[in-house]
Amino acid sequence: MREIRAILWGIGSMGAGIGRDLLQNKQGVSIVGAIDTDPNKIRKDLGTVLGTGEKIGVTVSDDPDSVLKQQADIVFLSTSSFTREVFPCLEKIIASKKNVITTAEEMADPSASEQELAVTIDLLAREHGVTVLGTGVNPGFVLDSLIITLSGACQTVERIKASRVNDLSPFGPTVMKTQGVGATPEEFYKGVQDGNIVGHIGFKESLSLIARALGWELDRVEESKEPIISKVLRTTEHVRIEAGNVAGCKHIARGFMGAREVITLEHPQQVHPHLENVETGDYITIEGTPTISWRDENEIPGGIGTIAVAVNMLPHVINATPGLKTMLDLPMVSAHTGDLRKKIYKLD
Amino acid sequence: MREIRAILWGIGSMGAGIGRDLLQNKQGVSIVGAIDTDPNKIRKDLGTVLGTGEKIGVTVSDDPDSVLKQQADIVFLSTSSFTREVFPCLEKIIASKKNVITTAEEMADPSASEQELAVTIDLLAREHGVTVLGTGVNPGFVLDSLIITLSGACQTVERIKASRVNDLSPFGPTVMKTQGVGATPEEFYKGVQDGNIVGHIGFKESLSLIARALGWELDRVEESKEPIISKVLRTTEHVRIEAGNVAGCKHIARGFMGAREVITLEHPQQVHPHLENVETGDYITIEGTPTISWRDENEIPGGIGTIAVAVNMLPHVINATPGLKTMLDLPMVSAHTGDLRKKIYKLD
Repeated sequence: MREIRAILWGIGSMGAGIGRDLLQNKQGVSIVGAIDTDPNKIRKDLGTVLGTGEKIGVTVSDDPDSVLKQQADIVFLSTSSFTREVFPCLEKIIASKKNVITTAEEMADPSASEQELAVTIDLLAREHGVTVLGTGVNPGFVLDSLIITLSGACQTVERIKASRVNDLSPFGPTVMKTQGVGATPEEFYKGVQDGNIVGHIGFKESLSLIARALGWELDRVEESKEPIISKVLRTTEHVRIEAGNVAGCKHIARGFMGAREVITLEHPQQVHPHLENVETGDYITIEGTPTISWRDENEIPGGIGTIAVAVNMLPHVINATPGLKTMLDLPMVSAHTGDLRKKIYKLD
Repeated sequence: MREIRAILWGIGSMGAGIGRDLLQNKQGVSIVGAIDTDPNKIRKDLGTVLGTGEKIGVTVSDDPDSVLKQQADIVFLSTSSFTREVFPCLEKIIASKKNVITTAEEMADPSASEQELAVTIDLLAREHGVTVLGTGVNPGFVLDSLIITLSGACQTVERIKASRVNDLSPFGPTVMKTQGVGATPEEFYKGVQDGNIVGHIGFKESLSLIARALGWELDRVEESKEPIISKVLRTTEHVRIEAGNVAGCKHIARGFMGAREVITLEHPQQVHPHLENVETGDYITIEGTPTISWRDENEIPGGIGTIAVAVNMLPHVINATPGLKTMLDLPMVSAHTGDLRKKIYKLD
């Protein structure tokens, strides 16, 4: 069987991570093209850009049309968080008859925020015989797929509460800004109002996936973003937070059926949570018959987790029937330690 | 859309639990037939047998052929743990063109112990256009599906260790005997040698599912059964264990690649573990990139869990392409709180 051929569109931290995972950890797959707009990356060999130590004979291009002219089985699209922003890329990829896995958060369930675009993407994908999936660690895994899977051992479910408590310290200046890290409380509230402080992107999608899996029809979804005020000085390479200022954003989403809050998802994200004895971790409680309460010892790391989930869904996406899919439609994700082609029924 | 029609074959504790879950917790599904050999159950109304308080107009029959003559979408088969023993039932069900979900432990992956029968079942199912799935809480969920799903956030996996520590106290005399509870250490070792003390049934299947999902080819599988010797008196309704005698069976399965033990599954089962400060629970550690370590606060209960997983897979089994399936082939399990038909693409 020939190798699986992949194209990377977007070589930021997620796209580059996907590239390195494919090259270093996976067998049976080769990268045949790479697209980015960064002048520091274009016209360079992808191996150089990824820092994997050797050239791989693929030159990063800023011309999607020429890259997409070649044959490939899958495009990993990691350019934006929003369905509306990735849609023009999806159109090109689908028209070139390639499957897509995208880490765009809204694409984990585009019907949640962009009902019409979701229908269009599904129709286009069916028309051209390809599969489109949005996934990542969250949305896509911790606060939806894992919850849904755990609920599988329940006869009834009354209520779901889950929390992902993580440490933002490794992230760069963009994340610090969009989470309000280092702001004064006043700046934080203003930033939330302006839309500059966005917190977590993906709650609507996770709520939608959980509700659909469980057969719930949510009447209302509420989100709130509160500043995590630091009592101590916290510093990272990119930010300095004086006591009294904002160490992060406590973003909460709630799904209601009538007056009843049936899903509560919390995602407090901050730098150096341990400085105030906050334990990081992922916590899931499903109240029902039986009540199931799971937790991990450290949170599943966001960057590695997103890269892993996206790459690990590759065989399922290639095997799938055409159309727009969510994690609910495909077989369960798993790690792949051997040749990825063993999991694929058919290549051409 | 018409209701989903289900038949119960086997109304022991699992089959009866499935019946009660369908009647009491699920919508859009009706039970149209029931098969059992117990003279105390046959010729009685199923509602009476299930103790749900009202008659439902289905008489328990000991004649499978007559019950299978009527139309139905699914048969829940809960008569035995072993593929060889359920095979004649499967032949009849498949020939009558009905899908099957069975709680027979070996059927979670029949290829692990009965390669030839697995091929035969798959061929028969394809020939008659129906889907066959074996599942339950374990095998089927805790020590395979959950592990596999969690590994989905890993780029690499070196080793898997998982443990399901539970409490056998609620179970009856059959389970006490097959786990060696109440035996002297000498009787325990003799029982293991004779094959009368079997411990957990399903390790081979769980190891096989994990290895296949991760792309591992196991060179060797080892199982060991050790007595859990009680230091104190432990009693249940059905058994009395003097200090120095056996409170349960510590059953361990190990999967090797070459000399390397890559999967270790432990399932110590005993009555009243808390009397010696043993905490029950399910523990999963996946050593890799990243290492993921999850646990719950109480173990997912065996009986309810098996019933829930079996019933919750109903929509996926009806939606599936024909053939013998495992949990790896179908979309992720989830609870269903609404009308089951909402999850089904097509009924006839």
